[in-house]
Amino acid sequence: MSSSISEQLNNLGLNKLRPSGRQPDQMRPVKITRNFTCHAEGSVLIEFGNTKVICTASVERGVPRFLRGSGSGWVTAEYGMLPRSTNSRNGREAARGKQSGRTTEIQRLIGRSLRAALDLKKLGENTITIDCDVIQADGGTRTASITGAYVALVDAINVLKQDKNGAMKGNPLKHEIAAVSVGIYEGEAVLDLDYAEDSKAETDMNVIMTGTGGFIEVQGTAEGAPYSQEELNKMLDLAQKGIKELSGLQKKALAE
Amino acid sequence: MSSSISEQLNNLGLNKLRPSGRQPDQMRPVKITRNFTCHAEGSVLIEFGNTKVICTASVERGVPRFLRGSGSGWVTAEYGMLPRSTNSRNGREAARGKQSGRTTEIQRLIGRSLRAALDLKKLGENTITIDCDVIQADGGTRTASITGAYVALVDAINVLKQDKNGAMKGNPLKHEIAAVSVGIYEGEAVLDLDYAEDSKAETDMNVIMTGTGGFIEVQGTAEGAPYSQEELNKMLDLAQKGIKELSGLQKKALAE
Amino acid sequence: MSSSISEQLNNLGLNKLRPSGRQPDQMRPVKITRNFTCHAEGSVLIEFGNTKVICTASVERGVPRFLRGSGSGWVTAEYGMLPRSTNSRNGREAARGKQSGRTTEIQRLIGRSLRAALDLKKLGENTITIDCDVIQADGGTRTASITGAYVALVDAINVLKQDKNGAMKGNPLKHEIAAVSVGIYEGEAVLDLDYAEDSKAETDMNVIMTGTGGFIEVQGTAEGAPYSQEELNKMLDLAQKGIKELSGLQKKALAE
Amino acid sequence: MSSSISEQLNNLGLNKLRPSGRQPDQMRPVKITRNFTCHAEGSVLIEFGNTKVICTASVERGVPRFLRGSGSGWVTAEYGMLPRSTNSRNGREAARGKQSGRTTEIQRLIGRSLRAALDLKKLGENTITIDCDVIQADGGTRTASITGAYVALVDAINVLKQDKNGAMKGNPLKHEIAAVSVGIYEGEAVLDLDYAEDSKAETDMNVIMTGTGGFIEVQGTAEGAPYSQEELNKMLDLAQKGIKELSGLQKKALAE
Amino acid sequence: MSSSISEQLNNLGLNKLRPSGRQPDQMRPVKITRNFTCHAEGSVLIEFGNTKVICTASVERGVPRFLRGSGSGWVTAEYGMLPRSTNSRNGREAARGKQSGRTTEIQRLIGRSLRAALDLKKLGENTITIDCDVIQADGGTRTASITGAYVALVDAINVLKQDKNGAMKGNPLKHEIAAVSVGIYEGEAVLDLDYAEDSKAETDMNVIMTGTGGFIEVQGTAEGAPYSQEELNKMLDLAQKGIKELSGLQKKALAE
Amino acid sequence: MSSSISEQLNNLGLNKLRPSGRQPDQMRPVKITRNFTCHAEGSVLIEFGNTKVICTASVERGVPRFLRGSGSGWVTAEYGMLPRSTNSRNGREAARGKQSGRTTEIQRLIGRSLRAALDLKKLGENTITIDCDVIQADGGTRTASITGAYVALVDAINVLKQDKNGAMKGNPLKHEIAAVSVGIYEGEAVLDLDYAEDSKAETDMNVIMTGTGGFIEVQGTAEGAPYSQEELNKMLDLAQKGIKELSGLQKKALAE
Repeated sequence: MSSSISEQLNNLGLNKLRPSGRQPDQMRPVKITRNFTCHAEGSVLIEFGNTKVICTASVERGVPRFLRGSGSGWVTAEYGMLPRSTNSRNGREAARGKQSGRTTEIQRLIGRSLRAALDLKKLGENTITIDCDVIQADGGTRTASITGAYVALVDAINVLKQDKNGAMKGNPLKHEIAAVSVGIYEGEAVLDLDYAEDSKAETDMNVIMTGTGGFIEVQGTAEGAPYSQEELNKMLDLAQKGIKELSGLQKKALAE
Repeated sequence: MSSSISEQLNNLGLNKLRPSGRQPDQMRPVKITRNFTCHAEGSVLIEFGNTKVICTASVERGVPRFLRGSGSGWVTAEYGMLPRSTNSRNGREAARGKQSGRTTEIQRLIGRSLRAALDLKKLGENTITIDCDVIQADGGTRTASITGAYVALVDAINVLKQDKNGAMKGNPLKHEIAAVSVGIYEGEAVLDLDYAEDSKAETDMNVIMTGTGGFIEVQGTAEGAPYSQEELNKMLDLAQKGIKELSGLQKKALAE
Repeated sequence: MSSSISEQLNNLGLNKLRPSGRQPDQMRPVKITRNFTCHAEGSVLIEFGNTKVICTASVERGVPRFLRGSGSGWVTAEYGMLPRSTNSRNGREAARGKQSGRTTEIQRLIGRSLRAALDLKKLGENTITIDCDVIQADGGTRTASITGAYVALVDAINVLKQDKNGAMKGNPLKHEIAAVSVGIYEGEAVLDLDYAEDSKAETDMNVIMTGTGGFIEVQGTAEGAPYSQEELNKMLDLAQKGIKELSGLQKKALAE
Repeated sequence: MSSSISEQLNNLGLNKLRPSGRQPDQMRPVKITRNFTCHAEGSVLIEFGNTKVICTASVERGVPRFLRGSGSGWVTAEYGMLPRSTNSRNGREAARGKQSGRTTEIQRLIGRSLRAALDLKKLGENTITIDCDVIQADGGTRTASITGAYVALVDAINVLKQDKNGAMKGNPLKHEIAAVSVGIYEGEAVLDLDYAEDSKAETDMNVIMTGTGGFIEVQGTAEGAPYSQEELNKMLDLAQKGIKELSGLQKKALAE
Repeated sequence: MSSSISEQLNNLGLNKLRPSGRQPDQMRPVKITRNFTCHAEGSVLIEFGNTKVICTASVERGVPRFLRGSGSGWVTAEYGMLPRSTNSRNGREAARGKQSGRTTEIQRLIGRSLRAALDLKKLGENTITIDCDVIQADGGTRTASITGAYVALVDAINVLKQDKNGAMKGNPLKHEIAAVSVGIYEGEAVLDLDYAEDSKAETDMNVIMTGTGGFIEVQGTAEGAPYSQEELNKMLDLAQKGIKELSGLQKKALAE
Repeated sequence: MSSSISEQLNNLGLNKLRPSGRQPDQMRPVKITRNFTCHAEGSVLIEFGNTKVICTASVERGVPRFLRGSGSGWVTAEYGMLPRSTNSRNGREAARGKQSGRTTEIQRLIGRSLRAALDLKKLGENTITIDCDVIQADGGTRTASITGAYVALVDAINVLKQDKNGAMKGNPLKHEIAAVSVGIYEGEAVLDLDYAEDSKAETDMNVIMTGTGGFIEVQGTAEGAPYSQEELNKMLDLAQKGIKELSGLQKKALAE
């Protein structure tokens, strides 16, 4: 493969570049494939570069006990990685009999974010379960999951709309939701970190936003040194750029 | 959709046919995609019609405690289904904290079958872990898993061969292994049952064989009435035909 | 102990014999003791040589959720080994908090086989739970379990028959069921393997049949080399002989 | 069966008797069968009337981590009931994945009592595991377990004595141990309660003693009204009588 | 090591002293603080010297399944230790996913003892859950727990009395309950053992009694040598003295 | 109930007040008690108003496997709530056998934050375990935990400093760490939410910062509507004010 201009500048020390050769504000190629598997009401394969996640949305009548009779619906999420989606094999959580703390944290984040997209009252007493299963990991699996799951969720809601017994009360979709990671890598704010960056970043931040620029969730962690307000603002600016691109791709995929 | 000739014959009662319109001795289209994901030493997507399974083979140095110092290697297998690989969503085993009896049974069968393919002594003190993850299910997931896993296993062994520190002692591959299901459906012996047949079959049999016609495992269960020696023989004949075809497809995939 | 004729022939190399001195087609002494414990509706101690299993059948009104209102009954089985039923002590599964894969596999096999013996519709909405607890193990615990459990099941059904509130709808017994192991040991097909044979057999096959010669389940595994169709047939012939003997012993025990 | 004098008195209302017709200070028939199963170093079937428990003692080299290098041995115990050892079936603890609080309490009591019988220093770094498995229950399973386990323990120690590599340092047996239950039933102190009494007793007490009358453990619980010092003393007197009888039976069994 | 004055006196037999300098029949300072936390119906901090336990009593409408419709209430207890309540940190039971055998034993004892204090019929179909959480441990945590829990229980019942919907049927309090440990330490019977004594005691006995001197539970274990009837009696005498003092302190605390 | 002045002003729209009557930028009274329990190297009771948490820091030699031989130390955290620390009783996690997702998330946050305070290399191969146990909850338990745990951590490090065998390599403390919650409540940014606010807030944000104003972690979640950049900035300003106050109180407590 011939080296890109940025790699050449890199080699000359003129342009301190990301391992992938991307510009600081450049997303990886993103691909959204709807109807990836055949059984689920919504089924999406989302790819952020080499990160690949199958996101399905499954509709079931009824809601958990704490909502019964409330007229309100529910959205919940589960997350998993195939054991060899990563560079070295991780033990299968089903075999260990326990989901890790990381898995728990991620699936709570996905569920919370997607619930924020909906007016659960309008959903009626239906439950939509989101499954995000990583088949290949290269950083950003949780942000890819949320971005893909949103598309699967819309497909599932469209199935519910056509179901006369579905008991929806109007369109439950309130917000378009997408997610992207940003971080400080070698002193510079960068967008959409891959594994090579993520594993060495000083700061790692996941940002979930609406298509119109409202914040749903911000989680920023100093892995090395504390970060400043200025760095925080730079990262949020990058995140906004990334979300805008992702939101456009979601719209385009849903229009096909 | 215009009806096929067999469907027309079917309607005339002249040709009692399978739900898929296949002949009794006809396999579904089988597709084997190598290098499906990028991290594993062997990674195969296998498709038996609508049944799709990701099979990876992961190599690790060392063996379980009971083999340490024996000079012998080990092969083990794990099996899982994505929660919405099936028509209605199944609870995630990692979330329930327990693998089902069915999962346990299947992964023991896969591991046992693949160990039979190898001379574990020649493998040296290496462990190969097979992961079979069903992303879409339409009957025959265990036989597709074994057939795909064999290809992933060969790829992993080829990686080990090129590893000078891998400590293999010659070629550990003894047998080519493939698996297929057969059964009695509406009184007739049929090959490679899909879900529509499997869920109503009177007898369901899984057959694992070598490429040269030796039996590795036969598991035949009467779901309805007991079956006779004659029916058993008919099913074994069909299985041999199917295994021959699968073995050819494995060879072809490995030659690419 | 004076050596038997077969042992003498063995020593002369004229008659390659089994460790126990049995002929290839010879079962171990089988003993069936009904009413072994006092609380269960059916309670049997079955002995295949040194293998001893307590099989009880317990009747409860009602069925699992998936059958409620169906009018159909249910039979399920659980299997366990006392920790020191074997040569070296095995950890107690209750203490480890988990049943092993082997246990799961066996109890699923027992349950499946006994359900095949009954017309569950005629059982009415009753559940019969079979418990097979091995108090001494010397190979063949699963086949002894099924053979003994059938007798306990018949006793339990007879209790139900006399219960006017039991709501049975006619006699649910459809088939007499017995089970035996066969295998290839030192190149020869043998019947009813004990531990000394089982641990070294090239092929190990468990056969569950009806008293009239129909197959309920066949599970044959190559432990060493693959087996041929001819070997398969020889093993099935031996199994039929063994089942006939066991079926006779069951009848006799039930007649007492 | 002809009725005993006490039953006749009972019928006349002259002698308020126990459900079994026993005198207040009368034990049930006790039977101790050594070498009940063939694999364990010590294996005893003990019967207190209809209560039947298999007690095995298994010897293993080595000790738990907290004793390694101390030169001291260890004795531990596990307890279980076959699911249908009782009047109505209890869920199998291995299937539920958890031992009940009652089981935990009993096996801790058995282990503690038998450790008190030994000088663990003299045992050397060996572990003896006691398994008490109730095959039929009619009250007093824990006291029968301890009484039978003591005999199995002595047998296991005798095996160890003859093992030149066993590394025992003299005879570890310090005390003969037996156990019996006493209680207040219908206002009267009674010895060796069966289930009919146990389930209605006002006070239930388990007493473990040495053959020479020292107390190892006393556990007395008011199930109904609190009990007085006088009642406590009466129960302890009965316990001493019972222990003396049991100790004699243990000696006799071990002499055979 | 030069001996202290008390050790010298000790050696002379003039003053055989406990590590804390207490007399054999002397309790540690006991302090009962009601309303320690703000949410529970009853909340008590009890201190036996350096042993500190938070005891809360929580009232809930309804009873476990086995009591539904019986008109009877229920009392149950749970016990825990903060991981660093002890000298070296113990693993958190919630993180290990399992309560230890010791925890199980203690919480069963606490629940049983407090149920003995009440007429559960008069409680109506209400459940009171006792939580005893040790924040600092120095021996005697179970007896402090029971003594403190009784006070919390009385407070909770007083809350229920004022609840018109509480459906109590008269005053359920039957007995005042307190608990204390006694033991044989260096050959002498002592009251209320602290950790320094408890860890070396020859015999350890927990006694739960009513305020009027009836026994609720006696648990006495020989840790070293067996104990005699005389020693048992001495320990019971000390226990009675301790219970009287504790009962007085409970009354005083409840009167404030 | 007569309404308070602030409620009246509130109703007139003149003074939109918090349920507690606090100003938007006003913390609850904070109290830090060192040496709260006697066994741990660091033990702190921290109170944020009615929220009370016991934070202990326990020192152990050695590190988890993944750090052995690295020369680096480790800090980890566990979090729990007493079952009745909340308004209605929550099931005990030890009894349920599982920590909730919320617990997992919080203890990961505490551990991550405190590791950021230290140079783990200078800690040497020692592990410090932080336990945060909530004895009374009124909102903000995770921020109180981190703030109190920092003080306990400093105390534990001071103990390690005086331990000549402790093998520390200089002072591992890099940053002072404190945490506070902020949120949007009834449209206004407020500091240090109590339960009454937390349960109704539109946005809830936890901010962990160094004493010098660097960000360690920011987690902001829209519970109702998405939040804007402007609201985010207002919340961060409040957080900085709160952290400054907490940092002062930590210093003061440590100086005593």
